[in-house]
Amino acid sequence: MAPQQSVLALDIGGTKLAVAVMTDDGRTHGFLSEPTEKHRGPDAVIAHLFDMGHRSIAAAGLGAPASVGISCGGPLDAPAGILTHPLHLPGWIDIPIVAMAAEEFGVPAVVENDATAAVLGEHRYGAARGAEIALYLTLSTGVGGGSIIDGRLHRGAAGNGGEFGHLTVRPGGRDCLCGRKGCLEAYASGTSIAARAKDLLTGDDRPSTLRDRDAVRAEDVAAAAAAGDPLATAVWRETTDVLGQAVTDLVNIFEPQVVVLGGGVTRSGVLLLDPVRTLVQTTAMPPAAARATVTLAGLGDAVCVVGAGALALDLLEKTRV
Amino acid sequence: MAPQQSVLALDIGGTKLAVAVMTDDGRTHGFLSEPTEKHRGPDAVIAHLFDMGHRSIAAAGLGAPASVGISCGGPLDAPAGILTHPLHLPGWIDIPIVAMAAEEFGVPAVVENDATAAVLGEHRYGAARGAEIALYLTLSTGVGGGSIIDGRLHRGAAGNGGEFGHLTVRPGGRDCLCGRKGCLEAYASGTSIAARAKDLLTGDDRPSTLRDRDAVRAEDVAAAAAAGDPLATAVWRETTDVLGQAVTDLVNIFEPQVVVLGGGVTRSGVLLLDPVRTLVQTTAMPPAAARATVTLAGLGDAVCVVGAGALALDLLEKTRV
Repeated sequence: MAPQQSVLALDIGGTKLAVAVMTDDGRTHGFLSEPTEKHRGPDAVIAHLFDMGHRSIAAAGLGAPASVGISCGGPLDAPAGILTHPLHLPGWIDIPIVAMAAEEFGVPAVVENDATAAVLGEHRYGAARGAEIALYLTLSTGVGGGSIIDGRLHRGAAGNGGEFGHLTVRPGGRDCLCGRKGCLEAYASGTSIAARAKDLLTGDDRPSTLRDRDAVRAEDVAAAAAAGDPLATAVWRETTDVLGQAVTDLVNIFEPQVVVLGGGVTRSGVLLLDPVRTLVQTTAMPPAAARATVTLAGLGDAVCVVGAGALALDLLEKTRV
Repeated sequence: MAPQQSVLALDIGGTKLAVAVMTDDGRTHGFLSEPTEKHRGPDAVIAHLFDMGHRSIAAAGLGAPASVGISCGGPLDAPAGILTHPLHLPGWIDIPIVAMAAEEFGVPAVVENDATAAVLGEHRYGAARGAEIALYLTLSTGVGGGSIIDGRLHRGAAGNGGEFGHLTVRPGGRDCLCGRKGCLEAYASGTSIAARAKDLLTGDDRPSTLRDRDAVRAEDVAAAAAAGDPLATAVWRETTDVLGQAVTDLVNIFEPQVVVLGGGVTRSGVLLLDPVRTLVQTTAMPPAAARATVTLAGLGDAVCVVGAGALALDLLEKTRV
């Protein structure tokens, strides 16, 4: 039997590098996840990433991949194949990652924003299968987004569309890493949920189980809110309020069939999903609200790798035509 | 010489009905614009609209049109061809406008949201020609929007996408006709600009030339602001602030090449355009800001009719394939 065609998928995160070989059924083989160690700089990190690629190919046992798909945080210039200056990788300036990967593995390569890759993965293999219009929000260290429109990936003029994290949810509000104030990311990222809890602990005398901790993380806030802690509940309610407002705006803009929420913050499950769903159903324009389902990601932590694999498969299609 | 192929374009506005025959060069023939007189109810208004259609066909002298394109405010169900309950036409419930027009004129018909039609018109014949990604905002009695994505019209799952007017720009702010608070429409529509000026005149002692008027309209506010009237300037600055914020959000979401502003409020020209442009250039994410041009509509008051004509032409293409 001829070996099944496979592609190599590389995901460059600020904390972790994830790599796998993927077949066109969306299954991953030889999956590896290792720390990024970004302090070592782009040359060392990329050498490590490519080494993981070779190890994954060997472990998968499916022969040489036909193409390479790469996902990375923006900003990047996808058509040019260049990481211009990813916010989560300080010091990475104008890295020609597509040319580097193509040379390393001897096959065509492609790069996209990680949330763009993620929506493609969820659309083809996850919670957004069959949708003509699907949106994806990643609630993680930062907040990113991607969209499928009329069945096809929308990437913006140069792959930087879908900056749902920088919707203005509280004009003049909290500082955002992007330099503006009041962005969704400044309220609904894991980092900002933790930071808001810390601020509230400082300025509020109410007892809270969060006071017992050295470092408050977003998951601690979620757990304490679930247990009824009033201070954590206040932080959590603000989180779901702004997220529900932003998803409502996106539903009004796109009239999607499905909005998928993914990333570490969504491990809180229904504690996040239920109030967001309720806000969207009660405040979006009725025709759009009636059609839109808000749901959790189906691919979990592998979503960006699966998305990068889907990009690599699409690249083969394009080359064939 | 065989007569040039032509289509009939019908635009159903809350104030005016506009009708023309259009050829595929985007030129209109036999253009008519008459009051809607919506108090007469759907049957009388539609009979009037169709009568205008027959008169326009006769005046154009290009023979029977090959198809009919209709634009109307939402909500509507475009795939089903039904005006479900257009906000600007109270009492119009589930009007099967496509079937009615097809029967009246004996040719296929199509309907879309008016702002969706407008972006198609601007993309094919106006200020957004050649753009892969283009957005259109109409600032009129209300605020609507439409988008071209990857060169194609995006309409939402049922033709109600592009509700840019209901982006939340001031959470908890002014009441909007949609039932929510703080929507863009509650600040940047002609109606709301006038209403905000009136509110400010009541609660503020400063002298203002606006006090001399019986009824303050949006164009009076623009003119007084241009002349340096401090009260009108305050209203106008809030208008351009919220509009600039909303356009920035849209640029971050879509990474478009062009954002076209149309509708009556844009007759104020650079007084509106310049501050909005400045806000977008200084506050949108740098890669998206660098690529996006904000500009005024190229088709003026005929934009919806030309858009409806473009829809009718596209319908012929689809039928042919």
